[in-house]
Parts: sequence; C-alpha cells; structure tokens
Amino acid sequence: MGDTDALNIPRCSFPRIIIVGGGFGGIALAKALKGKEMQVVLLDRNNYHTFQPLLYQVSTGGLEPDSIAYPLRKVLQGYPDFYFRLAEVREVVPESKLVRTDIGSLSYDYLVIGTGAETNFFGNAEIQKNSMEMKSVPQSLNLRSLILENFEQALLTDNLHERNALMNFVIVGGGPTGVELAGALAEIKKGILPKDYPDLDTRRAQINLIQSGDRILKEMSEKASQKAEDFLESLGVQVWKDTRVIGYDGKTVRTKTDLVFDAATMVWTAGVKAVSIKGLNGKDLLVPGNRMKVNAFNQLIGHEAIFAIGDTACMLSDDTPVGHPMVAQPAIQQGRHLGDNLVRLLNNEPMKPFVYKDKGSMATVGRNKAVVDLKNFKFQGVFAWFVWMFVHLFFLIGFRNRMVVFINWVYNYVRFDREARLIIRPYNRDYSQFKDGQVLNKES
Amino acid sequence: MGDTDALNIPRCSFPRIIIVGGGFGGIALAKALKGKEMQVVLLDRNNYHTFQPLLYQVSTGGLEPDSIAYPLRKVLQGYPDFYFRLAEVREVVPESKLVRTDIGSLSYDYLVIGTGAETNFFGNAEIQKNSMEMKSVPQSLNLRSLILENFEQALLTDNLHERNALMNFVIVGGGPTGVELAGALAEIKKGILPKDYPDLDTRRAQINLIQSGDRILKEMSEKASQKAEDFLESLGVQVWKDTRVIGYDGKTVRTKTDLVFDAATMVWTAGVKAVSIKGLNGKDLLVPGNRMKVNAFNQLIGHEAIFAIGDTACMLSDDTPVGHPMVAQPAIQQGRHLGDNLVRLLNNEPMKPFVYKDKGSMATVGRNKAVVDLKNFKFQGVFAWFVWMFVHLFFLIGFRNRMVVFINWVYNYVRFDREARLIIRPYNRDYSQFKDGQVLNKES
Repeated sequence: MGDTDALNIPRCSFPRIIIVGGGFGGIALAKALKGKEMQVVLLDRNNYHTFQPLLYQVSTGGLEPDSIAYPLRKVLQGYPDFYFRLAEVREVVPESKLVRTDIGSLSYDYLVIGTGAETNFFGNAEIQKNSMEMKSVPQSLNLRSLILENFEQALLTDNLHERNALMNFVIVGGGPTGVELAGALAEIKKGILPKDYPDLDTRRAQINLIQSGDRILKEMSEKASQKAEDFLESLGVQVWKDTRVIGYDGKTVRTKTDLVFDAATMVWTAGVKAVSIKGLNGKDLLVPGNRMKVNAFNQLIGHEAIFAIGDTACMLSDDTPVGHPMVAQPAIQQGRHLGDNLVRLLNNEPMKPFVYKDKGSMATVGRNKAVVDLKNFKFQGVFAWFVWMFVHLFFLIGFRNRMVVFINWVYNYVRFDREARLIIRPYNRDYSQFKDGQVLNKES
Repeated sequence: MGDTDALNIPRCSFPRIIIVGGGFGGIALAKALKGKEMQVVLLDRNNYHTFQPLLYQVSTGGLEPDSIAYPLRKVLQGYPDFYFRLAEVREVVPESKLVRTDIGSLSYDYLVIGTGAETNFFGNAEIQKNSMEMKSVPQSLNLRSLILENFEQALLTDNLHERNALMNFVIVGGGPTGVELAGALAEIKKGILPKDYPDLDTRRAQINLIQSGDRILKEMSEKASQKAEDFLESLGVQVWKDTRVIGYDGKTVRTKTDLVFDAATMVWTAGVKAVSIKGLNGKDLLVPGNRMKVNAFNQLIGHEAIFAIGDTACMLSDDTPVGHPMVAQPAIQQGRHLGDNLVRLLNNEPMKPFVYKDKGSMATVGRNKAVVDLKNFKFQGVFAWFVWMFVHLFFLIGFRNRMVVFINWVYNYVRFDREARLIIRPYNRDYSQFKDGQVLNKES
C-alpha cells in the first residue's frame, strides 16, 4: 500500500468509493450510499459545501457567507464507515486505482468525480487577470469588498471621469448569475447608496450587463428573456445585447466594436468549464469545456471504475447533444441515481441508465421580480419571485442556514436594506495605480 | 488648507469634530452629536463596528462574523453634516490641529481618540509571533480556521504525541475572554468533535486555561471566580492558576516553572494595551498600557482640543487609581457624556465631569453556566446565563444582527451544535514544519 496509508483510512472488507467534491452531486451521492455495504471517502479542498446559486447575494451584502455554506463533516455525521478528508486532488492514476492529493495518496475501488465548474475565460489571460469572478465564497467576498472599496474611493477624487469609472460596473454574461448580480447591484444603487454616501452623487453609478447573444437568459423561454430584460431596465440596468467583450486592462472594457466602458469593476460570468484533474484530462476523455464524456451510467468512457457527475460529466445522447445543463439539478439527480447504480453494481445487478427530469429553471432580478419556466407553465413577477425564494430555501442545506437566510430576506425586503456590507476581507486594490493610468490586477 | 482637502470634506460654518474609531465610544459619541451644530467626521480603518464581546463565538463557530459587525455608514445614515472615511490614522499634529491618514490629511477643531485596545504581549516577541489573538474579526476567523485545521491534521498522523499536541489548546489569561473561549472549546469538544471526527479519539483533546494570578475573573467577585472555575472544571477544562507563561515557540508553551505544554495552538488573552497614535504618544501623555491621561472631561492633559474615550483614556482619580476598566461600558458612557460636554463647550458653558456608573460585570462559561456581579446582587448559573444573553443581544447594534444572533443561539442551544465551522479564511499553517520539529509562525 505504501503511501496509500497517508490519509489514515483503514481498509475494511467493503469496497471503497472515493467521491471527489462535496458539491450538489457529491452530497446527493453520499446520502444515497448511507448504510450500504461500502466504505465512502469524501474529499474536498474546502471543509464546507457552497450553495453557489446564492453567491451573488454574498457579493452584494445581502447574505453572510456562513449562511450559504455548510460543514461537510456535518453532512456525514452518523454515517457508518464514511470518511471526510480536507484534501485537494492533484492526480488520478487509473492503472493503479490511486488518487494523489496534497496530503497523500489513497487507493479506490470506485472513483466518482464531482469537482464542479470554474470560470471559463476562454484563454483570455488579460480578462482573467483583471476581472472578478464569483464561483466560490472567497471570490464572492473579494467582489463584495471591491464594490464597497470603489465607492469609498470615489468619494476621494475630484476627477469626475475617475469617479464615474469607480462607480461603473460591467457584468459580462447574461446568464442567471449575471442577471441576478446586475439586479442586486441596481437595488443597492437605488436603496442603499444614496443613504450611505450622501456626499456622493450615486445617481452616476452605472450597472451594465453585456450579453454576446441576442437575448439574456438564453437557456430560458423567449418570454422569460424579454421579461427579465424589462425588469432589469426598470431597475436602471443598461443591457447591451449582441456585444462581445474582447479585453479588459483593469480600466477599460473593450468590445468587438467601438463600444468601450471605463469601469473599475468588471465581473466575468460569461462562461464556466469543468475542473479537470491530471490523469483524467486526455483529449479522448474531454469535450470542449473540459467535461468528461460519460455513458448513461455516468461511467467514464473507457474507465469502468470511474464515474463523473454534475458539471464534470457530459452525457451525450440524442436528447442532450451538448450534455445536461451545468446547474444544480442534473448534479443532484445524477448523484442520487449513481448511488442506486453503485449498489446494483456491487450486487452484480445491471445498472440503470440515467434519465434527467427537467424541473424547469428560474432567475430573479429583484424584489417581486423573477422569471420561472416550468414545463407547462411559465410565469413572471411577484409569484415567480416567491417561488424562486421558496425553491432556494428548500434546496439550501441545513435548518439553521434556512432560518438565517429567511430572516435576512424578510429583513432586506421590509427594510429595503442589505446589512452585510462589511469589508472583512479587504481586496486591497492599489488605487494610486488607477489614478496614474496604470493597469490594475488581482495580485496588486 | 493644502492637503487637508484630500478627504474631500468641505469646511462649513460649524466647527469640525473628528472622531477616530467607530468602537463603542465613537458610536455613542456620534449618536450624541446628531443634529448639533457641528460637522462630525468619523474615521475608522474598517467600514464596520465590531462587537468584540462576541468575537470568541466567531472563533468557535457559533456565530458568523457579519452578525456581530455593523456597517459604520449605516450608523450615520440620515445624520446631517456627518462624514465617514475609511482611513487609518497615521499621525496627529496637535500644533496644526491636523490628522494625517493613509488617504490624506484633515484639519480639526476638536479631536476625539477612541481607537480602542489591541493585544498586549508585554514585549515578548516570540509569543507575539507564534500565538493567536482575538481582538478583531480577521483574527477571530484565523483562530477558527486554525482550530479546525488542527483537527483535520490530527487525523493524518499516527504519531500519538503529535496528534495530542494538535488537539491541545492553551489559553493564556483568565479574564472574561479567556474563560469564555475555554468554555466554548470545551463544549465543542464534548458536543461536536465526537460526531464530526468519529475516526479520531477526541477525548484526548485538552483545553488548558492558564492564569498568572490566584483566581480567574479577578475583576469580579470571589464567588464569581470560584463558580466560573467550577463550571470550567465540570466542562473538562484544566485551569492552571499561579502559572506564568514565559514563551511559546509554536510547539511548546513554557512557563516560569518546569511545567510545559506541547500544543499547536496558544491563544493569548492575557493583556491589552491602548492603540497609540504617533504625535500623541509622548511619555508625559501615556500611562503603562499606552492609555492617555485625561482629566474628568476626557480632555488630554495639556491638549484642550483633544479628547480620548474608552480604552484609550485613563481617567485617574481617587476612585479609579488605574483608570476605568477597559470594557464596553466606560466607553459608551464616556462617548455619550463627551457628546453633551462638546455641546456645552461650543455654547461656552462649563463642561461637567464624567461619573462612571458601574453596571456590573458578567461572563459566560457555557450553556446554562454564567456568572453575573451586579452592585447588590451576585448570581450564577441558569438565570445568570439568560441575563448574559439578554444583555449581549441588547447591546448588539442592529435589529438584523440581533435576530440572526438570537436564531443562532436558539439553534445552538436546542441542537447542541455550532454550524459556522467553516474554514473560509484558511490559516495555512505549514504542518510539515511542525512535523520536523521546526517552529511555526503567523507568517507561514
């Protein structure tokens, strides 16, 4: 065994399943395996699960990060023969059935990859360096700090152009994340900034949402797209369609046309790609966006003992020519389904193919403003907004989290406020560089 | 004016009061000055107020940091002619009535220093380098991360001595902070660790509270001290009295006697000192612990236009031979009183001397376990615990914060749980150093 003992997990008579990633899929799978005749090891580089759909509310001061995260060890409490290790997976060696991590190596009988997705900059290093992303709690807190620091800084300058740039927000990507962030920023501009910054003309703050295609929320119905755009415009968000961003030096957002934006903040929500792992990143395994090709049992093509679920899995079929959407539902359903299949596999029964149940999709723009597409029923407005809130509370993990988020939402609704606007994790942008016309970057 | 315009605050016909520090004293003063004929500028290096008495619950996963912090701009919302600037004061130049900050300089007519206190290591650089402190939100989050990371690390070692050291906590200082932290850690050990770490013998985790004097909570009654010690021992905390810590290399806590502790975590709560500012740190102004000598009007000796309140002020009298206690109440009362005095001063009326109303003191050890000393009534146990909670909720700033803290406390009480145990701000200790017998440090 050698270094496979480094994680101090004893081998028992049951086969060992390693789950990499405690996201929606990994947790659903772990729950499905409780009490089965398997040893389950969950590895994650964080000791908590992140409820990504609400990260934008952390960025905009509506929620505290602790209320949308959940300790992974608590998920597994009372599960017999389950192990959690705080570890970052560095490599998979399929020939030896071995996972190498930053704290040592571990052998497996079955391996499930559920490492989720990260921001896709499509190879544009300049944008990657200078724009903000919002896929993790620390990234969301960085964005929260930057937004607040920009306003503090805007107070200090007499240069109108510089001040406007500091209050100019560009969000690239018209998917749910971009739409929800733009709406939340617009509400802050309207409800909080004038009271918080009476000595600043915050009417000049601009929120720009840029979409490369001809409509926002392009995965949803035309009606939802149109209504979401109406909602955004009623909140004062500038929506730029058919506009492709090609660069950002930290000061100026450049597009394919003459259109430019001088903005101190650009948030990139225009793409995601699966987090790939060394050893499982061969060209034969991956589709564009780094998702791994799997069969109808979530089994990696050519690797019987390895499975992928959620964002990392691309299950190609006639119904899903580009795989399932990279959102929570396919991950949860695949996690559950794979749990049942693994039990069948160990009982020498045939596995059943995965069938996705599309439960619809939704996005919120602001108070009383949301859009919901169900299979047979599409609706927008106040009722959609309540449905959105109910569904998000329902899928949030943990009773305490639900209570705290609920209290915050009621408070924010009644008081038109968002109180978590604290710079607890200063982003430390060097504003003197900005003043002198130099380029900002994430490392500064 | 020159660089005094750098903060973009226009001079008006009213005199300008600069308040440095948005702690208990600074906020109380600002509130007392609302609507008076003064321009008030509040400077703080954070954009939030920190409710320090509950920081230990952030460190131990009982509360999220956002629920005990409060945006300073929100405190001042709707106050006419009030300005807040996110700035760190670097120097005061009394001759020019000028405050120099990291974002520029500002002139004042009256200056109030309320910068609070920081940890006092009494010049021991080794302890300062290697021990944890708990005076700010980031420090408390660092401690939370370190505690959790230590347990994750303890899982990985087969060396019993190393594993015990990773689960060994030494808290130096038997004041309220040390007592409350020790109690919270003991409850975590009992209620959470066995469930979170079934593959670790967490009974070996040790919580040691070290006090140099002959009793803990020495500012409180003998009865309170004794009862608190009983409570701690019933929770399994080792209380070491008459023991003076003289060094900590990151591995071994050394005391004046042969007694040593091998511990990966030492928290230093054994002393505080006022945060002093260049220009106001002359030997004639300061008493030991860097507090500034003030008269009965909180006026700095020899500086008519400069005042100090709270932890930074040392008001010497026959009743207070070492000044008032460095806790919230004197700060709040002095802030309010100084507000009234500044109004009198501007109306050419004589100022009134400050009289401290001692409202008593209290500390909590764990569920149903607290000690309260009022002037004529000292009590301990369940009722004291409810009083402690009520008082802390009452003094917490913000309705939302009170609700969220209340929900958390009810949840933690009913479920014997603390869910905010997330490593959101990894402390990144280099454990390989620890293994090799080298010294750990904060910078690593």
